[in-house]
Amino acid sequence: MQELYDYLSNKVLLSPDAKDYLNTITSVKEFKKGRVLIKQDQVVNKIFFVLDGCLRSFIYDRNGKEHTLRFAVKNWWISDFIAIYFQQKSSQIVECIKDSRHVEFDVQSLDKFMLLYPEFGDFHRRNMERHIASLHSRILNQLQLSSREQYELFVEQHPDIEKHALNYHIASYLGITQQSLSRIRAAINN
Amino acid sequence: MQELYDYLSNKVLLSPDAKDYLNTITSVKEFKKGRVLIKQDQVVNKIFFVLDGCLRSFIYDRNGKEHTLRFAVKNWWISDFIAIYFQQKSSQIVECIKDSRHVEFDVQSLDKFMLLYPEFGDFHRRNMERHIASLHSRILNQLQLSSREQYELFVEQHPDIEKHALNYHIASYLGITQQSLSRIRAAINN
Repeated sequence: MQELYDYLSNKVLLSPDAKDYLNTITSVKEFKKGRVLIKQDQVVNKIFFVLDGCLRSFIYDRNGKEHTLRFAVKNWWISDFIAIYFQQKSSQIVECIKDSRHVEFDVQSLDKFMLLYPEFGDFHRRNMERHIASLHSRILNQLQLSSREQYELFVEQHPDIEKHALNYHIASYLGITQQSLSRIRAAINN
Repeated sequence: MQELYDYLSNKVLLSPDAKDYLNTITSVKEFKKGRVLIKQDQVVNKIFFVLDGCLRSFIYDRNGKEHTLRFAVKNWWISDFIAIYFQQKSSQIVECIKDSRHVEFDVQSLDKFMLLYPEFGDFHRRNMERHIASLHSRILNQLQLSSREQYELFVEQHPDIEKHALNYHIASYLGITQQSLSRIRAAINN
């Protein structure tokens, strides 16, 4: 848990009391690559804060093809937020694409924590604001950039993810085929 | 302002005091179709809550082509949230695509309002949660659906926007050409 406090320390001032409470509502989990944390069609009541490793959220379309919504590495949050915020069963799968360690938050306890400690509520609000802005950027980039430009931006913004993810993870995040991704990489390296 | 209170009334319980304060930090504006509310490359300190009409946010890419990020009709919020949340100058343009009336919120005053009246802060948080979930859905739909399916979903979810927006607005929102949009509409109607 010290890693979570270290991360939070320059973002939000938590009292010893708040830290004690946080300890009672969280647990650190460690899983091997390939472990599925959220399955399709389940009730979702967990949010994961990554300490180490790499997680991925994705869906299967009706043809069984995977589409990657999000990766999460150290200090990122991940879950099926569509399921949580629209209060429906999960459509996404969340899996470890590397051996990973994360802090697991129960959604209801996290809500209660924010009510009890408004300073954490403010921190969460700023997180959501940045999340919204980055999603707006991603949508605009999907609309305006070529596949190559989107890949170059992805590598620039997420060099750590590019190292861990498989070709089809990245291709399915960018919305291109693995063949296109290979061509783009070859063109960049030549 | 009564329309804003009516909208808020079944979502958040505001004291008379909170309403009085809200009155001091907002103003209702009325503009003709074509009016630009946010220009490119400016400091953004306003968020708009639409009472009537239709607003649109979009960017120009380096070739001068437009890409639509968002529409906003009655009871929707709009601004350049990338500029506000990342504290940078605007990259988006926000314009009225119909004669419109909206409530204008100053960003700093809205932040202060949320601190003074936490019940509004909670309402804002739930709004942001739904916003995040709908952005996740949009990204997954962009990845997995055909252009025709995306258009059909858009019409189903936003029949009011489809009535007001021009062809190139919708095409630039879906990331397709106007010709493709015409073909899709013709195929649906035949």
